Amino acid sequence: MNVIIIGSVALDDVKTPFGEVKDALGGSAVFSSLSASYFTSVGLVGVVGKDFSPEYIHLLNSRNIQVEGLERAEGKTFHWTGYYENDMACAHTLDTQLNVFATFNPKVPKTMQAAPYLFLANIDPDLQYKVLDQLTQPKFILLDTMNLWIEIKREALLKVLPRVSMVVVNDAEARQLSGVTNLMKAAQWIRDHGPRGVIIKKGEHGALLFWDNEIFALPAYPLDSVKDPTGAGDTFAGGFIGALAGYGDLSMESMRKAAGVGTVMASFTVENFSVRRLLELNPDDIRARYQQLQSITRMNDF
Amino acid sequence: MNVIIIGSVALDDVKTPFGEVKDALGGSAVFSSLSASYFTSVGLVGVVGKDFSPEYIHLLNSRNIQVEGLERAEGKTFHWTGYYENDMACAHTLDTQLNVFATFNPKVPKTMQAAPYLFLANIDPDLQYKVLDQLTQPKFILLDTMNLWIEIKREALLKVLPRVSMVVVNDAEARQLSGVTNLMKAAQWIRDHGPRGVIIKKGEHGALLFWDNEIFALPAYPLDSVKDPTGAGDTFAGGFIGALAGYGDLSMESMRKAAGVGTVMASFTVENFSVRRLLELNPDDIRARYQQLQSITRMNDF
Repeated sequence: MNVIIIGSVALDDVKTPFGEVKDALGGSAVFSSLSASYFTSVGLVGVVGKDFSPEYIHLLNSRNIQVEGLERAEGKTFHWTGYYENDMACAHTLDTQLNVFATFNPKVPKTMQAAPYLFLANIDPDLQYKVLDQLTQPKFILLDTMNLWIEIKREALLKVLPRVSMVVVNDAEARQLSGVTNLMKAAQWIRDHGPRGVIIKKGEHGALLFWDNEIFALPAYPLDSVKDPTGAGDTFAGGFIGALAGYGDLSMESMRKAAGVGTVMASFTVENFSVRRLLELNPDDIRARYQQLQSITRMNDF
Repeated sequence: MNVIIIGSVALDDVKTPFGEVKDALGGSAVFSSLSASYFTSVGLVGVVGKDFSPEYIHLLNSRNIQVEGLERAEGKTFHWTGYYENDMACAHTLDTQLNVFATFNPKVPKTMQAAPYLFLANIDPDLQYKVLDQLTQPKFILLDTMNLWIEIKREALLKVLPRVSMVVVNDAEARQLSGVTNLMKAAQWIRDHGPRGVIIKKGEHGALLFWDNEIFALPAYPLDSVKDPTGAGDTFAGGFIGALAGYGDLSMESMRKAAGVGTVMASFTVENFSVRRLLELNPDDIRARYQQLQSITRMNDF
């Protein structure tokens, strides 16, 4: 077990100008685990309700994802209903039913506690903190969060920051957390509060990665068809930590490559609804698109 | 004379959270000419009023910019008053006095009419069309426009498009012109209406360049201090066409390099008010920042 991922497992109703799905497999832990599973072994820690199809569990298990930490509780699975209009950068939430996720108390199974890489996807920072106490020898801890926690659990979030290696947030969250508009300064603010690195995700505009004294900036993979952006950020984070765990070191070279991989994985996810596209990839697809992105972004010598 | 640039010459009052200037040298033709002048010889075509300081004319002339086409008319110079708040991506206009610019009728001096490169900065598309008839052997024509012309002079704009080589617009303008939200599709729409290439500027998020069947995507140079974004887009366009004219060919390699140069030049402009920063550069500054950007964006092999 190389990477543990802790976050939401959801059933989503999503509508976009290009179609809609109901009760589709989703959630931060699902997108990120599937993405990471192309590069390393993954253990998923989460909770589902009695309505969660055993087929989905079987599906995850068949993809290099250990589900021993996926609790099955009384009640219903976390359910998100939302839609996108022409501006795919903006998700509109119609309804959020936390259900069994409301009382989620993540427990990392004994067999997974020695995993070196951990992705704390977006959950209550108090729970993120508790998870950290369950790991015996973490090497790299990646943390995501959201506007809600920055607003109502700021102190808890600031308490967990010094214990993680890197924060991955979108540009709006980076600005909200730091109180600074300039993204370079926002990243510095976050690093001043503990983490060694920061990734700022900018959706269709790509991402900025800060690690030690270096910066890596990369655009998103340009797509002329985006069907459903749900899960793009989690797919990025999962691809990033999965690839990084596969490389096995924390050098800037590996960070750069992993961020490129995360970008590529996210570009696949948005090409179809739910996790559909993420399920049909093979290593050659990933490599080919990485190389295309490399070619698209290559700056010739001056 | 390698590049002709036609656009506004202005005196700007600008206020940002980092200071303010009054009657500062500005305008699309000024920013782009100064930017281009680091790479090739430039001829500026524009109009100023009697209030325009001869020192400014002397300044331009001293920078490899021929000002024979800069008309001095009765009346006052084009004057823009605006401000920026913390979100430097958004300019707020307080007042626009067209003054002599309202009756601008660009005349390209005989001695400049054989110039191979032309930048039609943002002016009325009818005037842009008329300028094209004055050139004897154009090789590459770059056209900028704005939301106003897309709205009120759409037909005139569509008439000029087939006569230019490349359009340079920001993302909002590309969407408005094409009626399409996805930027890849918006670029394709524009190219379907005539131009061989398109550049979409995305401010702090960088730029996308489309030429023949290739794409180049590059982020902006990350800055932790932006004092005044005025003129960034024009500086980009001027640096782009200046560098391109310096290379002398229309290969994708040269397009990529020129877009990198434009990005670097724009990053200097925003570091201070008006054209201040643009006036104090030397070739080593430009080369060093280009190489930094190259390093920041370099994707390692998969």
